[in-house]
Amino acid sequence: MKNALLAGLIFTASTMAQAFEPLPATPPTPANNPITAAKIELGKQLFFDPRLSQDGTISCNSCHNVMAGGTDNRSVSVGVAGAKGGRSAPTVWNAAFLSTQFWDGRAATLEDQAKGPILAGVEMAMPSPEAAVKRIKDIPGYVQSFKAVFGGSDPVTYDNIAKAIATYERTLITPNSPFDRYMRGDKSAMSAAAVRGMKTVESLGCTSCHNGPNFSGPEMPMGTGFFQKFPTFPSKYDAKYKFSADEGRYEATKNPADKHMWRVPTWRNIALTAPYFHNGSVMTLDEAVRVMAKTQLNKSPSKKQVKDIVAFLNTLTGEFPVQTMPQLPDYTNATMVKAD
Amino acid sequence: MKNALLAGLIFTASTMAQAFEPLPATPPTPANNPITAAKIELGKQLFFDPRLSQDGTISCNSCHNVMAGGTDNRSVSVGVAGAKGGRSAPTVWNAAFLSTQFWDGRAATLEDQAKGPILAGVEMAMPSPEAAVKRIKDIPGYVQSFKAVFGGSDPVTYDNIAKAIATYERTLITPNSPFDRYMRGDKSAMSAAAVRGMKTVESLGCTSCHNGPNFSGPEMPMGTGFFQKFPTFPSKYDAKYKFSADEGRYEATKNPADKHMWRVPTWRNIALTAPYFHNGSVMTLDEAVRVMAKTQLNKSPSKKQVKDIVAFLNTLTGEFPVQTMPQLPDYTNATMVKAD
Repeated sequence: MKNALLAGLIFTASTMAQAFEPLPATPPTPANNPITAAKIELGKQLFFDPRLSQDGTISCNSCHNVMAGGTDNRSVSVGVAGAKGGRSAPTVWNAAFLSTQFWDGRAATLEDQAKGPILAGVEMAMPSPEAAVKRIKDIPGYVQSFKAVFGGSDPVTYDNIAKAIATYERTLITPNSPFDRYMRGDKSAMSAAAVRGMKTVESLGCTSCHNGPNFSGPEMPMGTGFFQKFPTFPSKYDAKYKFSADEGRYEATKNPADKHMWRVPTWRNIALTAPYFHNGSVMTLDEAVRVMAKTQLNKSPSKKQVKDIVAFLNTLTGEFPVQTMPQLPDYTNATMVKAD
Repeated sequence: MKNALLAGLIFTASTMAQAFEPLPATPPTPANNPITAAKIELGKQLFFDPRLSQDGTISCNSCHNVMAGGTDNRSVSVGVAGAKGGRSAPTVWNAAFLSTQFWDGRAATLEDQAKGPILAGVEMAMPSPEAAVKRIKDIPGYVQSFKAVFGGSDPVTYDNIAKAIATYERTLITPNSPFDRYMRGDKSAMSAAAVRGMKTVESLGCTSCHNGPNFSGPEMPMGTGFFQKFPTFPSKYDAKYKFSADEGRYEATKNPADKHMWRVPTWRNIALTAPYFHNGSVMTLDEAVRVMAKTQLNKSPSKKQVKDIVAFLNTLTGEFPVQTMPQLPDYTNATMVKAD
C-alpha cells in the first residue's frame, strides 16, 4: 500500500505536464486473457444474463447499464429482492483504463471485479461460485461457447466466466468526445466556456489527481491503484453528504493508512453518471464540482468558474459504439429460477 | 362480452381446418398508429428505459426480456423495490399477433397494454401518466424524437409514449421456426417425434383453441379477444397449482360470465418461456402439457405422447432478429431519480 501511494505521488508529479490526454483506442489487457471476438460475444451474453443472479432478475447490465452511460443513475443500486448496498455503481464505460477496480480499488483487474457482484448478497446474490457455474453449465449454448473460447475438458469455471465478462468490458470504450477531438486539433469541438473550464481545472489543481487518458490518474501497472484521501479538508459538505461514514479502502484492507482512501474515479462521461461520489449523495454535477474543490483543494470557485468546469466536463462525453443485443442461450422447457 | 365469446366459438369452428399456419411477416397495425422507422427506434428506447419507473430500476425489458424469449422466466415478475404481482409476464415476442392483451385480455391493443405496467404499483410504479410524461419531457433527446415522429406542438403525451412502444413491439416477430419451415415444405425441419406431436395436439383437441398463426386462436379484429375457461375440468392440478385463486377476466370486468376466463396464450417460443400459466406455477413444459390435457380436455396423454408434444412445441421456437441496442437519450449533469 505504501508503495502504491508513493507510486501515486511520483506519477502525479511526473505527469503534471500531460494532464490532458486523448483516450487510447485499446485498453491494457492481462497477458493471460487475450481479447478474441468469440470471447467478447460470450462475455456480452453473460453481462446481460440475469440468470447469473439468484432470482433471475439482475444482470451486470442492471446496474452498469451500457445503454445509459454505464450506470443506473441511482445513489445506490437495487439488487435481488430490493436489497441496497452502500456504494454507487461506477460506470463500466472505460473502466478498462482504470488500474484498479471498485471504489476502494480492492480488485486489481476487471476479471477480479466481475467475480464480486455475482456473489454479493445485496447485488446478484448467488450463494457460491459453484452455484453460478452450475447455472451456466446447465445451458447447452453456453457450454458450447465456453468450449470454443477456452478449450480444455472443463471450460465453464468461475474464472472463465469472469474472463469473458472482462473481455466484453474491454470493448466498452467511448472515443471521440469533443475533448478528444479538440486535443487532436479540432479547435471548434469545444466552446469557449469549456476551454476556460479546462484551464480552470488545471489552475485550481483538480488535474493533479484527475489526469491521464481516463482522468482517473496516470497510467499505472494493472492492480497498482491510484488512491487519494476523501475528504481531505474539513467542510460543511462532509456532514451534509455523510462522506466519512464509509471508511473507503480501509474497509477492505483494515490497514489504518487506508482510512478514507478512494480510487480516483474517471471524469469520462461524467455528465451521464449522476448522482456523484461513492455514496451517490450529490445529485448534480455543479454541486459535485463545488464539493470537490472545497474538500480536496480547500478552494471555493466562483459561480462562473463552476459553470465553465461543468461545460468542460460535458466535453468528456464520448461516442458510444453501436452494439448488437446479445441473444441469451436457451434453457428450454423449464425455468432455472425456483418459484418464490 | 357475450359477443366476444360467441365470436370465439364461431371462429373456432370455422378455423378447425387451418389449425396450423405459418407466422405472417407483418402483424395487424391500428390505422391511427402506422409503423415508421423513427417510431420503432423511439419505441425501442422507451422499452429499454428504466427512467419510466419510479426508482429508475425497471424498464419494459426487465420483465419482457427480448434477449431471453421475451419474458423473465419467473413465476411472477419483480417490480420496483422488490414488489411482486400475481401474474406471470407473458412474452412480448409475437404479442402483436394477439387480438387482445394481458392474461385477461383487458387491453384491446398493444398501445393500451403499454400504459398499464408503467403505472402499476407492483411493476414500474410511476405515480401518474403525468409523472411519466414529465420524465420524458425532461430529456431533450426524447422531446426532439417525439417532435420528429408525432409532430404537433405538444407531442410528448402518454398516448404517444404508448404508441411508440407498441410500434417497437410490432417488430418483435420470430419467423422461420422449424415448424414454419416445415409448413413451407422443408420436411427435414421437424423430427419424426415432432411430427407425431403435431398430429397428437390435433387429435387430442388442443388445436381447437391453440390455432391460428400464433397458436393463440384465430385471427380476429383487434380487441375482440379469444377467451376460454381455465380450468374447465376438475383435477388434482387445480389444488396443486392454485389456478382458481385468480378469477381471470372477471377481476377486470366484474361480469360473472368472465369468471376464470383467460385469453388463449401463444405457443410460439413456449420452450423459452417457462414457468407456465397465469400464475407461473408450473415449472416445466411437460407438466404444462399434462395439466392442459387434463384440465381443458379431460385427457391423460401417455408419457410418449407428452414427449412428442413437447418435441412439437420445441419446433415453435423462431428466429430472433438481430437488433442493435438503443442508446438512451441523455439527461445530463444530474439524476432524475431521487435519492432513497
